[in-house]
Amino acid sequence: MSIVVVGSVAFDTVITPYGRVDEALGGAATYFAVAASYFCPVKVVAVVGDDFGAEHEAVLLTRGVDTSGIERVPGRTFRWGGEYSRNLNERKTLFTELNVFETFAPVLPAEFRNTPYVFLANIAPQLQQSVLEQVEKPELVALDTMNYWIEGSLDALKTTLRQVDILIINDEEARELSGAYNLVEAAEAIRVLGPASVIIKRGEHGATAFLKYGVFTVPGFPLRQLADPTGAGDTFAGGFMGHLASTGDHSMEGLRRAIVAGSVLASFCVESFSLDGIQGLGSEQIASRYGEFQALTRFDDI
Amino acid sequence: MSIVVVGSVAFDTVITPYGRVDEALGGAATYFAVAASYFCPVKVVAVVGDDFGAEHEAVLLTRGVDTSGIERVPGRTFRWGGEYSRNLNERKTLFTELNVFETFAPVLPAEFRNTPYVFLANIAPQLQQSVLEQVEKPELVALDTMNYWIEGSLDALKTTLRQVDILIINDEEARELSGAYNLVEAAEAIRVLGPASVIIKRGEHGATAFLKYGVFTVPGFPLRQLADPTGAGDTFAGGFMGHLASTGDHSMEGLRRAIVAGSVLASFCVESFSLDGIQGLGSEQIASRYGEFQALTRFDDI
Repeated sequence: MSIVVVGSVAFDTVITPYGRVDEALGGAATYFAVAASYFCPVKVVAVVGDDFGAEHEAVLLTRGVDTSGIERVPGRTFRWGGEYSRNLNERKTLFTELNVFETFAPVLPAEFRNTPYVFLANIAPQLQQSVLEQVEKPELVALDTMNYWIEGSLDALKTTLRQVDILIINDEEARELSGAYNLVEAAEAIRVLGPASVIIKRGEHGATAFLKYGVFTVPGFPLRQLADPTGAGDTFAGGFMGHLASTGDHSMEGLRRAIVAGSVLASFCVESFSLDGIQGLGSEQIASRYGEFQALTRFDDI
Repeated sequence: MSIVVVGSVAFDTVITPYGRVDEALGGAATYFAVAASYFCPVKVVAVVGDDFGAEHEAVLLTRGVDTSGIERVPGRTFRWGGEYSRNLNERKTLFTELNVFETFAPVLPAEFRNTPYVFLANIAPQLQQSVLEQVEKPELVALDTMNYWIEGSLDALKTTLRQVDILIINDEEARELSGAYNLVEAAEAIRVLGPASVIIKRGEHGATAFLKYGVFTVPGFPLRQLADPTGAGDTFAGGFMGHLASTGDHSMEGLRRAIVAGSVLASFCVESFSLDGIQGLGSEQIASRYGEFQALTRFDDI
C-alpha cells in the first residue's frame, strides 16, 4: 500500500556541537518520505521555490518517491535555522523564513486522492483539514502538530483530530494539548478527541504508544554519538507509517513492529547531519538495527 | 542465597502534591530490604536511635528480614524531610538530621560475614570500604552512591569501586562520576574504574543497564498516579539484587530478569507513600506486574 504525506520541504541551517550544515535539504515531508520509502511507495505534497533544483529532487527520486505533488512557485523555499545546546537537549531557533510556504494550500493531484495511508505532517490544522477533504476514504490517517497550533488554532485542530486514527506528537505537546502532565492521563484525554492511538515521542527516551489495544514502549537507541537530532520525529513517523503500510497489519503486533521500525530509522537519522543518516541504507542495516532493538529490550519469563 | 545490605534506616517526612507523611519509616536499607525480601533472605546492618520502636522493627521482621545487625544507640534516628514539585520531577530537601547516623561505623555480626551478596547503599565510601573489609569473598557486590560523595570523597569512592561488581546510580550521578554527558560514554568510563556492570536509573524513564555482556533497557511503568517517588531507587536495587540472589544466575538473561524484577518493585513503591506500596505484596501481584512489563515491551521479528 502507498502513503501520501503533506508537509514542509525546507532548507535547514543547523548548528550542533559536532558541526554545522548550511541550507541542507530538510523539512518534515522530506524526512518522512525518505524514511517511509524503505518500506512502501510514497507520494509527497509540498511547495518549493525556484531554488529547489534537480539535485534536491534527486534525493527523493533516488528513493523512488513520487514528487509530482510538489508544487513549484516563484520565490524562495522555506528556510529554517537552529542551534542545539552542548548536550543536544535544547534547541534555539535562529531564524524562520516561511517564503513560499506562507501561502501553501495543498492540492492533491487526482491520482493521489485514493491513497490508503495519509500522513499530515506539522502544518496548520486548517490545511490538514483541507487535505482530508481531498482524499477518498483513506484506510489510516496519522497527524503531527506542534505547540504553535495547539495554542493558536485549537478549535481547528480539534475538528481535524476527529478524523484522525493516530496522533504522533512529543511529550510536551501531549501535555499542552491535554492539559494533563501525566502521560497516561494525557493520552486518555487526547483519545477522547478522536485518535484511537496516541504515540508520544520522548526524544532520547524513545516513545510510549497508547494504542487502541494497550500500551507499548520502545527505548531510545543508546548511541555513543548523536550528531544532529533535526528531523528525528518525522523520520520516526515515516518509518512507522511506511512499515504499517507495507504490511497492512493494524493489530497490536503490527503496530508494535511498525513503532520499532520507526525507531530504527530515527536512530540512523540522529547519527548524521541532515538526511545523511537515512539515505542509502541497506535492508540488512535496517534488519540488523531492528535486531539490536530486540537485544536491547527482550527478557524471559520470570 | 542471602544478601546483606548496609545503609540508612530513617524517619522520613515527605510532602508531595498527593499528600504527606510525617516521620514514616524509610531509609535506603529499609526500602532495599523490604523489596529484596520477596525473593531471598535479607540481613540489615544499620544504626537507629532509641525512638526506633518495636512497631518499626516489625515492618522488617514481618518480611522475614534479619535485624540483628541493626545497632541501637542512645539518641534520635536519622531524619530527613523533602518536598516534591507538582510534577514529582524535582525534590527540595527540607531538612536533614543525621543524629545517630553521624557516627555510624558499620560492624557486621560474625554470622553476616560470609553472606554471598552484598549491597552497599548510599553511605560514605570509607564506610562502604570498611564493610568490604569485613566480608569474606562475597560472590557479588553492588554499590550505590550520590553526588555528595562523588564531589567530596572521590578518591575513597574510586578505591571502593575497584572491588565492586555492579554500580547502581542515577543518570546525573553517572555523568558527574564519569565527566561524560553521553550515557554510553559515561558507563564505559565508569566500567574502567572497576564495576563490570553499570545500571543507570532514569526515574520515570526506567533504567539502562550497561552489563558485562551488552546493553539492556527497561522502561518506567506508565502509571496514572505516582504518589511518592521516595525510595524508588533503593527499592529497584532491592528487587534486582533479591531476584539475582534467588536464582544465582549472573548470565545476561539472569541479569535482564533481575532488572525487570527491580522495576516491578519500584513501580509498586511509587504508587503509595513511604513503604506502603511494597509491604504485603502477593507473589501473584509481582508476577502479574512482571507480565505487564512484558506486554509493554515485547515485539516480534520484523
